[in-house]
Amino acid sequence: MKSSRNTKPEPTEVSIGDIVVGGVQTVVIAGPCAVESHDSLMRIARSVKVSGAHLLRGGAFKPRTSPYSFQGHGDDALKWLGEARAVTGLKVVSEVMDVRRVEAMARVVDCLQVGTRNMQNFDLLRELGRVPNAILLKRGMSATIEEWLLAAEYILAEGNPNVILCERGIRTFESATRNTLDLSAIPVVRALSHLPIAIDPSHGTGRRDGVAPMTKAAIAAGADAVMIEVHDDPERALSDGAQSLSLFAFDGLMRDAARIADVCGRPFQDQRVVAFSSRTIGGAI
Amino acid sequence: MKSSRNTKPEPTEVSIGDIVVGGVQTVVIAGPCAVESHDSLMRIARSVKVSGAHLLRGGAFKPRTSPYSFQGHGDDALKWLGEARAVTGLKVVSEVMDVRRVEAMARVVDCLQVGTRNMQNFDLLRELGRVPNAILLKRGMSATIEEWLLAAEYILAEGNPNVILCERGIRTFESATRNTLDLSAIPVVRALSHLPIAIDPSHGTGRRDGVAPMTKAAIAAGADAVMIEVHDDPERALSDGAQSLSLFAFDGLMRDAARIADVCGRPFQDQRVVAFSSRTIGGAI
Amino acid sequence: MKSSRNTKPEPTEVSIGDIVVGGVQTVVIAGPCAVESHDSLMRIARSVKVSGAHLLRGGAFKPRTSPYSFQGHGDDALKWLGEARAVTGLKVVSEVMDVRRVEAMARVVDCLQVGTRNMQNFDLLRELGRVPNAILLKRGMSATIEEWLLAAEYILAEGNPNVILCERGIRTFESATRNTLDLSAIPVVRALSHLPIAIDPSHGTGRRDGVAPMTKAAIAAGADAVMIEVHDDPERALSDGAQSLSLFAFDGLMRDAARIADVCGRPFQDQRVVAFSSRTIGGAI
Amino acid sequence: MKSSRNTKPEPTEVSIGDIVVGGVQTVVIAGPCAVESHDSLMRIARSVKVSGAHLLRGGAFKPRTSPYSFQGHGDDALKWLGEARAVTGLKVVSEVMDVRRVEAMARVVDCLQVGTRNMQNFDLLRELGRVPNAILLKRGMSATIEEWLLAAEYILAEGNPNVILCERGIRTFESATRNTLDLSAIPVVRALSHLPIAIDPSHGTGRRDGVAPMTKAAIAAGADAVMIEVHDDPERALSDGAQSLSLFAFDGLMRDAARIADVCGRPFQDQRVVAFSSRTIGGAI
Repeated sequence: MKSSRNTKPEPTEVSIGDIVVGGVQTVVIAGPCAVESHDSLMRIARSVKVSGAHLLRGGAFKPRTSPYSFQGHGDDALKWLGEARAVTGLKVVSEVMDVRRVEAMARVVDCLQVGTRNMQNFDLLRELGRVPNAILLKRGMSATIEEWLLAAEYILAEGNPNVILCERGIRTFESATRNTLDLSAIPVVRALSHLPIAIDPSHGTGRRDGVAPMTKAAIAAGADAVMIEVHDDPERALSDGAQSLSLFAFDGLMRDAARIADVCGRPFQDQRVVAFSSRTIGGAI
Repeated sequence: MKSSRNTKPEPTEVSIGDIVVGGVQTVVIAGPCAVESHDSLMRIARSVKVSGAHLLRGGAFKPRTSPYSFQGHGDDALKWLGEARAVTGLKVVSEVMDVRRVEAMARVVDCLQVGTRNMQNFDLLRELGRVPNAILLKRGMSATIEEWLLAAEYILAEGNPNVILCERGIRTFESATRNTLDLSAIPVVRALSHLPIAIDPSHGTGRRDGVAPMTKAAIAAGADAVMIEVHDDPERALSDGAQSLSLFAFDGLMRDAARIADVCGRPFQDQRVVAFSSRTIGGAI
Repeated sequence: MKSSRNTKPEPTEVSIGDIVVGGVQTVVIAGPCAVESHDSLMRIARSVKVSGAHLLRGGAFKPRTSPYSFQGHGDDALKWLGEARAVTGLKVVSEVMDVRRVEAMARVVDCLQVGTRNMQNFDLLRELGRVPNAILLKRGMSATIEEWLLAAEYILAEGNPNVILCERGIRTFESATRNTLDLSAIPVVRALSHLPIAIDPSHGTGRRDGVAPMTKAAIAAGADAVMIEVHDDPERALSDGAQSLSLFAFDGLMRDAARIADVCGRPFQDQRVVAFSSRTIGGAI
Repeated sequence: MKSSRNTKPEPTEVSIGDIVVGGVQTVVIAGPCAVESHDSLMRIARSVKVSGAHLLRGGAFKPRTSPYSFQGHGDDALKWLGEARAVTGLKVVSEVMDVRRVEAMARVVDCLQVGTRNMQNFDLLRELGRVPNAILLKRGMSATIEEWLLAAEYILAEGNPNVILCERGIRTFESATRNTLDLSAIPVVRALSHLPIAIDPSHGTGRRDGVAPMTKAAIAAGADAVMIEVHDDPERALSDGAQSLSLFAFDGLMRDAARIADVCGRPFQDQRVVAFSSRTIGGAI
């Protein structure tokens, strides 16, 4: 098994531009659930950059439970993501659903996300094994960790080693949260695999008041990255508003979470740029 | 919602050749998990036909948890299924995984199956809404019934009304069975939708000794169809051997299950052909 | 392990008066969730007797999720159950929760029920191992079958062999039903143990429209007994009204279910009394 | 509802001797799963005290899935716990299972624990509402948070306000961990209730390599207390050895976790005694 720590003991570092997931730094991915408009995306991208996020997320093609829900702005959204990247310098994470679009999306998106519903869409996984991009592979909402690693294996087996696992909550009987975020996946994955692991506390809890505690918990438990939904107007978000942080709340969380990342020896900032960055944050908000 | 009983109170009948799923008759679908060889498939097809099965199942493209497991014989298997259909007269059910193959498979397979892992592969569902074939939509292993009906809605919304729902077990903490077969989905689906519902006791239990009791239970609970894995040499099956019935065991089950179907007013046999069929069974085994 | 089929291959038959659970006959236990009043209980008891039930259930001490919900009529209810038994001849099943009450209840209740919340109340189980009564041991709502058999072992180990297992639904993510009734527990228990198994489709589904299909399914799957909540005025029941059958609906279900029990070779009626009983039913409702 | 934050907005502080659970301090409870011998307990108690634990846990009466497993040393264990308390000054937490023992145990144990299997043993809860001790109420392994708060309500309603909730993992389909530790219970409980919440990462993961990451995560997420199984010879523990930390590993965890508690503003040590305590730790191990 290529994903196994027995095969490759040293941790895999996945580079997305200058950002390394699985290295010393704790990486923060932030942005809207869905890209809703050019202006909203630019506002969010600029703000999360200033707050210290390292990568920008945003959905162009949305997997929606109902065919009658908003399905994403598609190619327009991809174009806006490219513009946000140009302006902020943040590399972009976005979900690919249709195997026929992999090649085109791989040219404009830095890190391709596989959603929870597609974790075992094996034809899609194989196709992603043939592009050079980083792949963020979300855990299926009822997948065991073993099955998740085997899904990663489909990508690795085709030749793409740049896989980041992402825990996003599993299905249980509890209804107070949208899913149950399984943070123990972090030590279990560490024991079994060399692949880096990210945590998505936004989908993992589905509650705004759960995002900050679970983000801090994820970092304390050793997550390589966290992925957080941020919106410039959460009350009016077209999807997942109930779990999105405001720009202001995200900025506060970054400060609190940074202290935990620091004492855990996995800081948010490459030490060479901390001084500059602190000044920027101080001045911009 | 097109799938809702409020929109269309009368039950939907899905025709596959002469066989009607959702009508008076209880329909039995039988065959191997994967089509393993020409000869094995022909043996199984002939035998289940004689035992009274109405449709032949067989996997050509197999969704396997590991990339290193047997992935199916692909186009060869499709050709053999066509031959088995020609010889036995049984229409064929087979799974499609790759959206790029829908059109080609729709020409040679009578009923296209969506597997549990693809229940929310929305691009695949949309494509299946554009072919005229019957679609057997398996419930996701952790999907709620509401999500399952919304997945069906993706197919219906594109114009294909021929959807058969298929319960195949859900994920729970119980480990004595591979999944927990949720037979209460039958009354719940009846209350919410006009679509017919099939039950797969083979995947639903993952145990050979669970297949007969759960098949009988499914029929007693009002299932429109049951789908049963049958193999001519279960101990050597390339996949799912532990849950496959032998040809002999399947024949015995058909006799027991037929009595339950009869007293429930949903017989296995169109009454016009019972006399002929009984003679055939008597002579052939 | 005393509960194991390896230790004792032949099935255990548990006698409650003249009724044998685990023998040829399929046994029907019916009655209200909670005993609500003398008159209501008498009406229900008489009616279910005429419809063909073999045992009367009724809660005197109710385990309620909230301390502010109706907790049962306690000793009054026990007295009324005794009266209903005297009038109808139906032996009585009722739940014991408090270990300090076991001795007293064992004198007036024929079959003591252990509720799902107490399946691993080990002191209670041990005490029930020291009385001669039949014990109906409900499966914990998140217990594996292995744990359930080990709970039975606590009773058997103390010397009481009269244990009936009762599946009543397990916890899953599905919310359309109160629990997910795990009928595959029937073949699994059969394979592992000699103890008889009952099914409770009322708690198992929590929906009135689920009770009849799941009762029939349970019998078809080989249940030794079914336990059904029946109320003379379900809309006004103090507990579990949404899942209780009316007297009339229960009578109809008994007729349908009897036909399935017959074809499965596990009839409701001891053949010696069928003629008499049919006449009674015909005349009384 | 007495447990509701609407009824009582300010957080409840539960005092156990000088230790306050629910105050500024993060409280650490440590000790063996079961008290196995006088000498082992004394060794563990002295060591965890030196490492900085605030309370000593140890099982005298053990709820075991099988009647044939070690059931605890009972009254002997209680005596040894009393001795360990006298020597170390650590107050003692121990589980009560049998309602008939509540009064006697309340005299010798500082904090009475209700195990996960007894969360809905309502007679036991009521009896615990009538003693003055602190009660550590573990969440049922398949209980919703709402049901857990209603179980607490049984204790509060009888007049005992000193309830500490304790999350210890819930049942899911994942098998790599014994349970799935639901840390999102922390923000959910905070939103609904004023009661303090503890986390048990030992039972919550069932893996030694999961205890440290989940302890740190729990503190980062805002837990009021953590409860950790520690053994002087984990490989030979009579119960739960696979999830117990060695004395040495626990000491290391305390140092790492203290840093997280500090940056979260919930330090392990009352600031008045930090200087003294640091010296003690430095000298003793």
